Amino acid sequence: MGMIDKLEYTNKHELIFLDQTLLPLKEKYQKTKSYKDVADAIQKLKIRGAPLIGIAAAYGVVMGVHHYDTENRKNFEIHFYKVTETLRNSRPTAKNLFYALDRMTKVFEENIEKDFNEIEDLLLREADAIYDEDAEMCKRIGVNGAELITDKMTILTHCNAGELATGGIGTALGIIYTAKQQGKDLFVYADETRPLLQGSRLTAFELEQNEIDFDIVIDSMAANLMKDQMIDCVIVGADRIASNGDVVNKVGSYSLAVNCAFHKIPFYVAAPGSTIDFETAAGKDIEIEERDPDEITKVHGEKITLPEYGVMNPAFDLVPNELITAIITEYKVHYPPYNFGGLKQMFSAYIQTLRKEED
Amino acid sequence: MGMIDKLEYTNKHELIFLDQTLLPLKEKYQKTKSYKDVADAIQKLKIRGAPLIGIAAAYGVVMGVHHYDTENRKNFEIHFYKVTETLRNSRPTAKNLFYALDRMTKVFEENIEKDFNEIEDLLLREADAIYDEDAEMCKRIGVNGAELITDKMTILTHCNAGELATGGIGTALGIIYTAKQQGKDLFVYADETRPLLQGSRLTAFELEQNEIDFDIVIDSMAANLMKDQMIDCVIVGADRIASNGDVVNKVGSYSLAVNCAFHKIPFYVAAPGSTIDFETAAGKDIEIEERDPDEITKVHGEKITLPEYGVMNPAFDLVPNELITAIITEYKVHYPPYNFGGLKQMFSAYIQTLRKEED
Repeated sequence: MGMIDKLEYTNKHELIFLDQTLLPLKEKYQKTKSYKDVADAIQKLKIRGAPLIGIAAAYGVVMGVHHYDTENRKNFEIHFYKVTETLRNSRPTAKNLFYALDRMTKVFEENIEKDFNEIEDLLLREADAIYDEDAEMCKRIGVNGAELITDKMTILTHCNAGELATGGIGTALGIIYTAKQQGKDLFVYADETRPLLQGSRLTAFELEQNEIDFDIVIDSMAANLMKDQMIDCVIVGADRIASNGDVVNKVGSYSLAVNCAFHKIPFYVAAPGSTIDFETAAGKDIEIEERDPDEITKVHGEKITLPEYGVMNPAFDLVPNELITAIITEYKVHYPPYNFGGLKQMFSAYIQTLRKEED
Repeated sequence: MGMIDKLEYTNKHELIFLDQTLLPLKEKYQKTKSYKDVADAIQKLKIRGAPLIGIAAAYGVVMGVHHYDTENRKNFEIHFYKVTETLRNSRPTAKNLFYALDRMTKVFEENIEKDFNEIEDLLLREADAIYDEDAEMCKRIGVNGAELITDKMTILTHCNAGELATGGIGTALGIIYTAKQQGKDLFVYADETRPLLQGSRLTAFELEQNEIDFDIVIDSMAANLMKDQMIDCVIVGADRIASNGDVVNKVGSYSLAVNCAFHKIPFYVAAPGSTIDFETAAGKDIEIEERDPDEITKVHGEKITLPEYGVMNPAFDLVPNELITAIITEYKVHYPPYNFGGLKQMFSAYIQTLRKEED
């Protein structure tokens, strides 16, 4: 599923994951048997990236069930909902988290009468399926998106929508890797992505591993590169996509989209269908997570300015659909006006297909 | 000249300056008798801000001359040019640096036949005049700019164009302080200003001292604040202004200007006449300083990502005149099309006036 071992569920019912807050300075793995640790790792961004959060949460549910000892069905049920609730509350914006937990809950509820061990097995199968499907979606997104990429292109990306963010090769970066495999020579500008520097830390780490040439730039340099005609397109991931194609993604995405519109440069969003929130009509209805001011006033726990200063620190921002040239899913390249009505059914059908293939 | 003691030339011919790289965590003063230390402090951004660099360099010249022991006029002359050359090479972009050194050189050359002590006295008077005039210019910029500011406005600024950057109350921030003194209630968003965080460190420090309410935001948040109608105008300083009104300022300014154009929000530049480069027709001819990649890969000397990754790190960017709503100088509020032809003469005349007032 890519070059980097980022997350593995063992047959001892432990989750081993790469602590992404320490990359690229340290490649340190953490091992846990506790679903609470998983929720904590998601909250602290040790595990991050919308699709990978969903996968980790799914395994968190399996662990939560496995390591709970009871003979009482009522208690078992109460405990299950406590586990999913804890994981659900770890982060409020990424759609894939809720998508994964909804799938786990559905499996649980459909099999509630079965033997506890059997339920647990079914939950583990579902979590594995979520992981595998995400890897497969990345692959398909890569192929679909690579059609938009020609030889010698220079691509700017923001945050990290790569291997480290997904179950596979990534979404935005997956397209770049696929295009490279097709023999296209590419150069990438990686926005450092303040405040948590997912670009200069994680995307740089991944691009290096995948032998893609790149430069790190501060986020506000993107506009200058565009003015100087050094960017052919921007590709970013998504944390949630509303039914009308409005995209919620890492803060800074909107400014990039405005600059793309101004400089007439394509702005692409790459994300699996599990990112689409079919229940939400428009982006304005999506809750944007406000994070700790320390993320801006400190780096590596060291003060860079006085912590008492006022700070505004949303994790995401909203890119309205009219600024998005195309949305690339595992299904196809979608152009405006965005209408995922059909995809909703196809997406469900596609998951069914994948499951059948596994059977 | 404001609330903060930032730079003082003593009667012992020492320069005492606040080390701005340590603010706001430490308010540490450094004292030196060496012009080379001044050049070094400018290069390392211990002293920064286009106008303040010019002032420091002027005192650097006085110190360089004072602490040089010779009876030989030829050697005295050679030494003078060595001093100015060293200071001139400290940073390549800020116009005010060259402006100050040109004034010092003019005084030197016009008085080359005089007694060494007398030359030194005249140089000190010129450096004092540059300092005093800059403070006066800030005051006038403040008054001129405050006319554009109404009660309850929310203003976004980038980098630090305040007391710490000038000989007086500042340019962009000077306008805010003046408007506040006029009884206008204001709120400021301070871009943190990557990579060196002049916003979250220096502007925040100044705004706190001057009792202005503010929030720090990451640079790419500005676009979101504009979309949400939370910004009434943007005011920034300038490091150099070409004859056609193109502005070179801290990297990130161009992205802000594009976002202002897109969201129909005024983008103002505030700077003294000494920032205008009458010899340069357009911004594209101005050299942009490329700084050490470490500024992006390290914070406080600590690695935040691997230092071997490729990095692009220009200190400034270019805002074309068509994106600038108005340029505020000590003389007036200039609107497009910018034509500083008249100002060139008036600026010279104005300096003459100031000198006469002092006599």
